[in-house]
Amino acid sequence: MQIRLAAPADFEQIWPFFKEIVAAGETYAYPRDLTQQEAAALWMTAPRETYVVEQQGQLVGSYYLKTNQAGPGSHVCNAGYMVAEAARGQGVAAAMCAHSLERARALGYLAMQFNLVVSTNQGAIALWQKMGFDVVGRLPRAFAHPTAGYVDALVMYQWLAPSLSGEAG
Amino acid sequence: MQIRLAAPADFEQIWPFFKEIVAAGETYAYPRDLTQQEAAALWMTAPRETYVVEQQGQLVGSYYLKTNQAGPGSHVCNAGYMVAEAARGQGVAAAMCAHSLERARALGYLAMQFNLVVSTNQGAIALWQKMGFDVVGRLPRAFAHPTAGYVDALVMYQWLAPSLSGEAG
Repeated sequence: MQIRLAAPADFEQIWPFFKEIVAAGETYAYPRDLTQQEAAALWMTAPRETYVVEQQGQLVGSYYLKTNQAGPGSHVCNAGYMVAEAARGQGVAAAMCAHSLERARALGYLAMQFNLVVSTNQGAIALWQKMGFDVVGRLPRAFAHPTAGYVDALVMYQWLAPSLSGEAG
Repeated sequence: MQIRLAAPADFEQIWPFFKEIVAAGETYAYPRDLTQQEAAALWMTAPRETYVVEQQGQLVGSYYLKTNQAGPGSHVCNAGYMVAEAARGQGVAAAMCAHSLERARALGYLAMQFNLVVSTNQGAIALWQKMGFDVVGRLPRAFAHPTAGYVDALVMYQWLAPSLSGEAG
């Protein structure tokens, strides 16, 4: 498994699993009918950095990293992760999360925040907790789940200790 | 005190107090050196609606209302309020907040969320609580205050009961 910076052309390979995840409507607060062009703008252009996970020549995951708030809030970053269905259960999300935390430190961020983790997404919540995130907020009924109805969303947060690798951004 | 929809030209009168509030860097997660053009884009163009408070021919306050998250999160709105220093302590913020809650209901939103209320801004926190908001999250050291250093920020949230006025959006 190799994690590398995404090139614009990579979105052709990201789009199939991106589309599936967003159309399912269970985890991301994106319009379920997002077009490929809108998705590329959101995932590839707007963020500060976007990475892909390559496995035997195939892209099986991607994540973005961006500044969560401007000005006096700009020391906190935000990230989002997607894994192709066929590649789940192999530690791809954990590897991307660890990579993103290291990149965040290298870029000088002091904290990482997830603004909306759907409360029914128990696997993700457990993983983020294992990766050092705390649940710092609970938004009542803030997510319209396609089968469970209005469900709570969590705010998760991690203060970033200085990098151990000595990498500087 | 009259609250009405903002026209683009109104920003000339909003900018003096907007600039002062943002330059102070104590309450908003906007770049402290935002230009007038950037500020207008942020406050007047990006939101769904922007209102102004007029008092004896002068604009003394303004607020925006927008959708906080897309897709399955789009039933939750977000708002931001600014009051000119000379007009503080006269209930302008409370009047704007009440107006925004009514507008939110009329537009069909089911909840209102404030993503980042600086924990040192005790007056605002008390007012939002009085207006029906709950503190649903606390972001550790998420705001770089110019004198207090890194301070916590709160996430505040209110589920919106149906409108009493019968107004439909």
